[in-house]
Amino acid sequence: MPICKVTRRVHFNAAHRLHNPARSDEWNRNTFGLCNSPNYHGHNYEMDVTVEGEVDPETGYVLDLAHLKALVERVLLEQLDHKNLNLDVPWFADVLPSAENICVVCWRELQAALEPRFRLSLRLWEPPRNYVDYAGE
Amino acid sequence: MPICKVTRRVHFNAAHRLHNPARSDEWNRNTFGLCNSPNYHGHNYEMDVTVEGEVDPETGYVLDLAHLKALVERVLLEQLDHKNLNLDVPWFADVLPSAENICVVCWRELQAALEPRFRLSLRLWEPPRNYVDYAGE
Amino acid sequence: MPICKVTRRVHFNAAHRLHNPARSDEWNRNTFGLCNSPNYHGHNYEMDVTVEGEVDPETGYVLDLAHLKALVERVLLEQLDHKNLNLDVPWFADVLPSAENICVVCWRELQAALEPRFRLSLRLWEPPRNYVDYAGE
Amino acid sequence: MPICKVTRRVHFNAAHRLHNPARSDEWNRNTFGLCNSPNYHGHNYEMDVTVEGEVDPETGYVLDLAHLKALVERVLLEQLDHKNLNLDVPWFADVLPSAENICVVCWRELQAALEPRFRLSLRLWEPPRNYVDYAGE
Amino acid sequence: MPICKVTRRVHFNAAHRLHNPARSDEWNRNTFGLCNSPNYHGHNYEMDVTVEGEVDPETGYVLDLAHLKALVERVLLEQLDHKNLNLDVPWFADVLPSAENICVVCWRELQAALEPRFRLSLRLWEPPRNYVDYAGE
Amino acid sequence: MPICKVTRRVHFNAAHRLHNPARSDEWNRNTFGLCNSPNYHGHNYEMDVTVEGEVDPETGYVLDLAHLKALVERVLLEQLDHKNLNLDVPWFADVLPSAENICVVCWRELQAALEPRFRLSLRLWEPPRNYVDYAGE
Repeated sequence: MPICKVTRRVHFNAAHRLHNPARSDEWNRNTFGLCNSPNYHGHNYEMDVTVEGEVDPETGYVLDLAHLKALVERVLLEQLDHKNLNLDVPWFADVLPSAENICVVCWRELQAALEPRFRLSLRLWEPPRNYVDYAGE
Repeated sequence: MPICKVTRRVHFNAAHRLHNPARSDEWNRNTFGLCNSPNYHGHNYEMDVTVEGEVDPETGYVLDLAHLKALVERVLLEQLDHKNLNLDVPWFADVLPSAENICVVCWRELQAALEPRFRLSLRLWEPPRNYVDYAGE
Repeated sequence: MPICKVTRRVHFNAAHRLHNPARSDEWNRNTFGLCNSPNYHGHNYEMDVTVEGEVDPETGYVLDLAHLKALVERVLLEQLDHKNLNLDVPWFADVLPSAENICVVCWRELQAALEPRFRLSLRLWEPPRNYVDYAGE
Repeated sequence: MPICKVTRRVHFNAAHRLHNPARSDEWNRNTFGLCNSPNYHGHNYEMDVTVEGEVDPETGYVLDLAHLKALVERVLLEQLDHKNLNLDVPWFADVLPSAENICVVCWRELQAALEPRFRLSLRLWEPPRNYVDYAGE
Repeated sequence: MPICKVTRRVHFNAAHRLHNPARSDEWNRNTFGLCNSPNYHGHNYEMDVTVEGEVDPETGYVLDLAHLKALVERVLLEQLDHKNLNLDVPWFADVLPSAENICVVCWRELQAALEPRFRLSLRLWEPPRNYVDYAGE
Repeated sequence: MPICKVTRRVHFNAAHRLHNPARSDEWNRNTFGLCNSPNYHGHNYEMDVTVEGEVDPETGYVLDLAHLKALVERVLLEQLDHKNLNLDVPWFADVLPSAENICVVCWRELQAALEPRFRLSLRLWEPPRNYVDYAGE
């Protein structure tokens, strides 16, 4: 059967702050600039969730995107949407909530919830001009 | 001379929380849902700043959009970008930082900084599917 | 209180065909071209639902966009989404389902379901390059 | 009959330069900055062509957008697309090709070619963050 | 010579229905939900047609995108645009017109019409939040 | 450490003309059509600058996108933005300024300015429907 990639774009928003507690305040201000702002700032994130697999001849689907959407909502969005990534989300207890790390953490959580015959890759947009791609490497 | 509207789209991001301290916690949770999340959440905001006025025959401009951009950065973005609207921005000391109120407050600040021959209107996007328009009414 | 417009963008898709049964097949083919294709074609529609009203000082809202979204889903999307506008939707029994008429019909249904203190306007996109605006005139 | 606005988005690209020959080179450099660059620069322009009128009950159309598209191509795009606005387009012999003036000139040419029962308005985008609106005022 | 990928984005719209006649009506309703709607629904499709090849030093082109556009119109869009995929398009006589299968079928037809030195890949968007990629695997 | 791709989207505009002086005027008109227009035309270009590398555990960054943005501005945009590619930019003295060649030239200049541990790829958009990808092959 042909192998396709299917993608569902999902959305969440969150507050965060980039601050490495192992380093001085001055290092943090120099390194992160406005992203080190003490009372948090925030983003709308768009995430393209891509699953690669064979097309099922009975359905014409790689997988049902409505199922994928429900899975992403349960596994990722319920933990992240309208949250403070630093204070509310245990995944970032010891990990800086940069776009790169949000993308890596989401990939690990979602890959573990997918059947192993599917290959996952994620693109995380921080509007309007930045995005990160991660595919498990 | 012809009268045109010229628009510059600007961008900022911020954390906020919707919580009315005059009402009970239960009322706030029922009214604002996830937007009442205690540790803040956040957004990327796109704002279309529109100025109506006559076209100057010497320049072909209503006003120089580079000047408008610089004015918006000084008057609005330096106060709002990468900030916590509830904690860091005095404009919201007694005003809920809803999209409507952010738009109204920005209009008042920016109109006061513009020459009176210009008529200002603002559109504030909360991505991906909501926006607010305010024109001083 | 300030008067704002708040907008929620909603989405549906549908099949349709432009064909006026009071006129000849030749007139229909000449008038509607590919849009007269006998077995229907289809569109994804994006609709900007705009409500104008006063900002409530207790909530900072003109109206709760989550309520507006639920109202639009019940009044409009349940009748239109994933449907054949000609065959499945009684609103178009005697009305051609052009973008103009879809917009007018949606406005009438939704205005009747809104409190009269709100003023409604709609923009209906037929991607990628056409849209229609209607505000009850 | 209901009155709608229908819009067709069209596209062209062109080179231009902002330079007022009645003023000094220094004034031009200070006023127009990079837009005064001597060998021209260029843009992709998107133009939303909006026509307001009554919906025709026989067709469901304000006007056939395929006809509008053909009219815009003949009246505007053949003169502007892939051209140097300063050197190739007589409309700008004595008019600075700013976005404002391009919008005003296009409005005058297109309004003259439309039946008088239609009301025209134009929005001209200079990507990615500027646009101009003109409606004949 | 350097090897680039060049992409032309094209557009079509169509009606379709997901229904596997080898299975029961109940299975079809459970599997396809609203997409099994009996009288068809529809979509606007955007397709990114990507061709990889060497840059020709005489033209600076991998291939002339105007030629690619004309080829796509002849080979694909004339069969698909403003059509009912189930009833009007023989390619889907025995193949479910899911986004995956539309993408695979278009790839096979277009690759056969391209010179073999070009490598083709397609991305098919079903707005606003789904897309499929296929590259011949 | 995980390996991510991070992307910054940048923007510039320029005038250009496609004309191969080694060939006849007739060949150039036939080959390039409107793009051979003698007095130049122009584009807004969007370029996605993608850098692949390991995530630094101290910062959560592959590299600071503010540094990448500043590097792109110095190495690329100062040479290209608001310029005539044929007349003002020495990189195109002997190279046709097609989208393919602009992308290849930008890749070579930027790769040489990046630390070798980073792998660069570029996507150059010529709005609204064309883009080119180059990754050094």
